[in-house]
Amino acid sequence: MKRVLSGMRPTGKLHLGNYFGALKAWIKLQDKAESFFFIADWHAITSAYQDLSSLSENTVEMMADWLAAGLDPEKATLFVQSWVKEHAELYLLLGMTVPVKWLERNPTYKELMENLKDRELATYGFLGYPVLQAADILIYKADVVPVGIDQIPHLELTREIARRFNNFFGNLFPEPKPYLSEAPKLPGLDGRKMSKSYDNCIYLSDSEEEVNKKVKTMFTDPSRIKKTDPGHPETCPVFAYHTIFTDEETLKEIETDCKAGKIGCVQCKRKLAENLNNFLEPIREKRNTYLSRKKEMVEIFVEGSKKAEKVAQETMENVRNAMNFFKPEDM
Amino acid sequence: MKRVLSGMRPTGKLHLGNYFGALKAWIKLQDKAESFFFIADWHAITSAYQDLSSLSENTVEMMADWLAAGLDPEKATLFVQSWVKEHAELYLLLGMTVPVKWLERNPTYKELMENLKDRELATYGFLGYPVLQAADILIYKADVVPVGIDQIPHLELTREIARRFNNFFGNLFPEPKPYLSEAPKLPGLDGRKMSKSYDNCIYLSDSEEEVNKKVKTMFTDPSRIKKTDPGHPETCPVFAYHTIFTDEETLKEIETDCKAGKIGCVQCKRKLAENLNNFLEPIREKRNTYLSRKKEMVEIFVEGSKKAEKVAQETMENVRNAMNFFKPEDM
Repeated sequence: MKRVLSGMRPTGKLHLGNYFGALKAWIKLQDKAESFFFIADWHAITSAYQDLSSLSENTVEMMADWLAAGLDPEKATLFVQSWVKEHAELYLLLGMTVPVKWLERNPTYKELMENLKDRELATYGFLGYPVLQAADILIYKADVVPVGIDQIPHLELTREIARRFNNFFGNLFPEPKPYLSEAPKLPGLDGRKMSKSYDNCIYLSDSEEEVNKKVKTMFTDPSRIKKTDPGHPETCPVFAYHTIFTDEETLKEIETDCKAGKIGCVQCKRKLAENLNNFLEPIREKRNTYLSRKKEMVEIFVEGSKKAEKVAQETMENVRNAMNFFKPEDM
Repeated sequence: MKRVLSGMRPTGKLHLGNYFGALKAWIKLQDKAESFFFIADWHAITSAYQDLSSLSENTVEMMADWLAAGLDPEKATLFVQSWVKEHAELYLLLGMTVPVKWLERNPTYKELMENLKDRELATYGFLGYPVLQAADILIYKADVVPVGIDQIPHLELTREIARRFNNFFGNLFPEPKPYLSEAPKLPGLDGRKMSKSYDNCIYLSDSEEEVNKKVKTMFTDPSRIKKTDPGHPETCPVFAYHTIFTDEETLKEIETDCKAGKIGCVQCKRKLAENLNNFLEPIREKRNTYLSRKKEMVEIFVEGSKKAEKVAQETMENVRNAMNFFKPEDM
């Protein structure tokens, strides 16, 4: 594993699902490989161009979330996609060689075309999402891309796009491999997948009070009516959280007591809220510090973007030469 | 008419068809309006990505053709598309709002999909040709675009794209109007449309000998076998040339003599070759001068590209603000 790249769309504050689904793996990877992580603000507009009122704010919030959670600018290059214009140039050039058929086959696009009423979303940019993604990855010649399982078809398309381009213009791009991290299952408050659109999230930025309040509303084993009813921790969202946030000894205790009907849900939740807050408190604190020094925080991403740009510019020089563009430097 | 913009794909040396079909109108326009003319090297790869071996050379040849024909860097901003990266950024952003349906309806794309065997050309870049064209035009907020009649549907699409973008993000772009110049009908050597693919062109760069040789091969009135047969100048390609390159008095003479069977085609062609060479000689000479000082010539386009870039950057700043991107300058 030499060079790792991944990005996230700034669509709102990060929740625990984002943290355990992606960010945690990134934080590990930054110690193991040369890492590039970017805020994908261009990607954010593919599906939301009709209302971009939060784009700017979301970008800043993402900076704070990332740094607070443990992404470290000393270890990884942290940058903003739209600040490295070369991504757009490579997107344009790669697109010249990508058959439209390939993109129409893309499951995300097919789904949209089949299911959604809002056909206005079937834009040229949305169709070309995988081309921009390929540009993001290939411009850094990344070997490895940490992705969720739903992103595997997109990454396969990136590999095909790289292969096709190499075929025409010489061996410029390595084919990136997916990196699937074993993410623990962390359900939302209602037991479904944690997702902003379900309004069932705990955010990295939630205050102690918010966490306490949200945990109180969490779904539990529905077959347990009274405290003395025996519980089924294996199906209880609260217990799923305990497996992550609670030490092993206490966890065992809770499991036994729940099954025996000895601990009530209220008490069990109180423990969880406490542990969750212990986990979130340092993140929250760092988050506030970064936001109170916003200018310094943004500067980290300005510097990161400059570092990324240098790499991107080198790649683009090679690409322009391979495609035989005339450049003033040729004189 | 405040600001004019147009571009040409560098697909080879310019011929008289290009000169009378476009360049001559541009040369007039540069005196009347703030003019931007660009070598569309990114567009050149949409249909030719499988072989770009001449792209670099064609770009340089186009510089020489333009300057020799009379485009004047003191009057017009002459630049190279791929040197102004902002075009790619606006292409990306506009594309986010353009329904794929609009592009599939585009006659050029439909024709390709229906007629061509080489479906490999139906690439994402080809489909998005009108989006890139819209970006080229809108980034300079051009009012007027000199186009050929076949380009009218593309320009209409630019107007629709501008309207849609304005609708979402505020009144950023004026809707450009087409400018159709009355181009004289100048057929190829064989009487068909002059086109490189028909191998029936006279190039601005053709030497005196080449011109003489080519004119000798020109098709004439097929009903005229002997010199004494009465000719039909109105259907003769050679006469079509005379109407452009020959003074009125001589033209009248030729017409009368041809109809009366008094002047032979050989003699008539000799006169044409002479006049053609008189027309081409100063262009040829300037062309050679520019090519012998290639570095200075390229510098003209470097300077032009910087001027264009400044305008493009201003537009992009407004676009990024309108779309609510977070930018370091916001701090």
